[in-house]
Amino acid sequence: MDDADPLAGLRDRFTLPDGLIYLDGNSLGALPAAVAPRLAGVVGHEWGQRLIRSWNEAAWFTAPGRVAAAVARLIGADADEVAVADSTSVNLFKILIAGARMRPGRGTLIMHAGDFPTDVYIGSSAAELAGLRLRFVDSPAQAPAAIDDDTALVAMSHVDFRTGELADVTAITEAAHSAGALVCWDLSHSAGALDLDLHAVAADLAVGCGYKYLNGGPGAPGYAMVARRHHDALITPLPGWIGHADPFAMSPRYAPAAGVARLAAGTPPMLSLLAMESSLSALDGVSPQALRTKAAALTSYFVELVDALPAARRGELTVASPRDPARRGAQVSLRHEQAYGLVRALIEREVIGDFRTPDLARFGFAPAYLRFADVWDAVTIIADVLDGGAHRDPRFAVRAGVT
Amino acid sequence: MDDADPLAGLRDRFTLPDGLIYLDGNSLGALPAAVAPRLAGVVGHEWGQRLIRSWNEAAWFTAPGRVAAAVARLIGADADEVAVADSTSVNLFKILIAGARMRPGRGTLIMHAGDFPTDVYIGSSAAELAGLRLRFVDSPAQAPAAIDDDTALVAMSHVDFRTGELADVTAITEAAHSAGALVCWDLSHSAGALDLDLHAVAADLAVGCGYKYLNGGPGAPGYAMVARRHHDALITPLPGWIGHADPFAMSPRYAPAAGVARLAAGTPPMLSLLAMESSLSALDGVSPQALRTKAAALTSYFVELVDALPAARRGELTVASPRDPARRGAQVSLRHEQAYGLVRALIEREVIGDFRTPDLARFGFAPAYLRFADVWDAVTIIADVLDGGAHRDPRFAVRAGVT
Repeated sequence: MDDADPLAGLRDRFTLPDGLIYLDGNSLGALPAAVAPRLAGVVGHEWGQRLIRSWNEAAWFTAPGRVAAAVARLIGADADEVAVADSTSVNLFKILIAGARMRPGRGTLIMHAGDFPTDVYIGSSAAELAGLRLRFVDSPAQAPAAIDDDTALVAMSHVDFRTGELADVTAITEAAHSAGALVCWDLSHSAGALDLDLHAVAADLAVGCGYKYLNGGPGAPGYAMVARRHHDALITPLPGWIGHADPFAMSPRYAPAAGVARLAAGTPPMLSLLAMESSLSALDGVSPQALRTKAAALTSYFVELVDALPAARRGELTVASPRDPARRGAQVSLRHEQAYGLVRALIEREVIGDFRTPDLARFGFAPAYLRFADVWDAVTIIADVLDGGAHRDPRFAVRAGVT
Repeated sequence: MDDADPLAGLRDRFTLPDGLIYLDGNSLGALPAAVAPRLAGVVGHEWGQRLIRSWNEAAWFTAPGRVAAAVARLIGADADEVAVADSTSVNLFKILIAGARMRPGRGTLIMHAGDFPTDVYIGSSAAELAGLRLRFVDSPAQAPAAIDDDTALVAMSHVDFRTGELADVTAITEAAHSAGALVCWDLSHSAGALDLDLHAVAADLAVGCGYKYLNGGPGAPGYAMVARRHHDALITPLPGWIGHADPFAMSPRYAPAAGVARLAAGTPPMLSLLAMESSLSALDGVSPQALRTKAAALTSYFVELVDALPAARRGELTVASPRDPARRGAQVSLRHEQAYGLVRALIEREVIGDFRTPDLARFGFAPAYLRFADVWDAVTIIADVLDGGAHRDPRFAVRAGVT
């Protein structure tokens, strides 16, 4: 399968530890080989030797736009519809307040109660400040029925972070648009692994994360997408000087920069941002469709191998993700009563996944650098751990650290 | 003077280009020597080899607290009163909304109309969302008279970014407290160069920038300070998962982390944050008083040398900063009709300052790495440029790039 994989060569663009099976690229993407030399130059030469002059000379000032263009290509948006700045949480806040302002007179924000926690928390705060009622649905599938003439905005993740299940973007967007509402998609688990095309689905708004399948590095800047038709009505709640039409006029009056550039607030964290620029070069020339196809193949192979384990070896382990790859992100979650112990025992065997409370062992299959052989080895080691009972080790009875 | 300087040895903790006179540490601090090797290890080993495990193993998760402790020492706050996260702009937004919530029933935010633009823009947005009227004063000195029983909050910069003039922190704080209001200080041009002691002045709230005199690197994270007595009432408008009491519980309900830790929103930009941690080690063992004393001596020497230029050489150049060092930050601004050309011509002579519209040539005197000999050389070159007319070069007739 690896021999037939058209993306097999991409792995050489990454620096991966020997012997490690890294199934956690949905938490922190692997290190692209281009990053270390670039960042050494940024620190030693651009910052150290050229100092403030690098904002012009080294084109630091235009870096957010370059990174935005690379992200835009992967999510089916135009470069001038994407802003790279701040964290996903902060971007979601901006977009929810801005989205509410695009629909004055409407009073409801609809979100998924089981969405990633930061989305729910930020949604609650943004709703309060924007004067919206926050209405929760128990699953994205319930959203269309919940949308009505009072709905200003629907905000949801494309991929469920626990199970990898995909929301029905088309159905939800159509229901929202029929009612005159807007939709904001959180693409944190989509970009770089799936092929959602924001233009094709007539998306309004989106946000996402730089450090998962985009491999931007720990805490890499996030992004926000605003469809061009909404630019004129785009009013950010965080109007910082970097988002001003002419930052160095130092005007006491705020005048927004053109389009999404106004979503910049303060000075971007350049070391993290320029690392992300290098990182994205690892996906140059790779289509979202090719990434999606391989992600589907990797996850399907994983499900198939887990299903093929004899019942005695599999024990109580069940697949918690959709079995239809069309309904699944680049992720498979396995349910097990001792999921925490399983994940910890696997880490000791150099298979890195993560635990999501209360009972999920979560495995991400980054299509840019994983091999089908890794999937085979991972399932072999999972079965071996379950056989040997390493997941019941008393050391794992208490959860510790970042899990 | 350099021989007698007790801080002279600090310069060895920085990597500075040979022959450059860098008077722009108030825009972007110089590179501390500790950063490049640390960041190479963060990228190559912690991210590249250890990947997600570094959140625990390499103590990434507790890095914001370590950086906060280093900042706190320099501003007279306790470590658990400072949060390091996001940009200064975003932190100011959080603190203004949070401050307004600490004074319910009051309707006014007072700011300085000539404050740094991002402060004014963010202040306008925060006031609108918090339901406050924004009242501008033309100078910090007018603030005490403007404060009344309706004042919720006064927010100002400690150091005027144009002239370096200091606000009277004691008078403004006392006036605010007498009326039951709170004050938020922007310390972007203070920390690392001055010795403002937030406890001594009974400060309520503060924000600041990591990349000026703290040398944290381009776009380094900012910080926010909340006095302990206000922690119970601290409600952030950006409640992200990193500021949750138990982020990995993944609870649908937001429960704020203890104290200022709740001011974290999304995942911090770790490459920028860990660079900042290394940077701050360059100030280990150095007291804010020693930094302030040297900054005053450097700026006084600069003013003295400019004043001593024969009138024919000085031309129309005037000192725009207060002449009393007790009323001045680590900065001297010179007013000149061709200030832009002067700054550009000086840059070509390897004297780096910056231009602030319409007519200020601004020079920052970072006490950690500047020598008195640099001050002498800078004024010699300024006089030489004015003598030769390089500042009137037609190339400088049009302003270009980041200025």
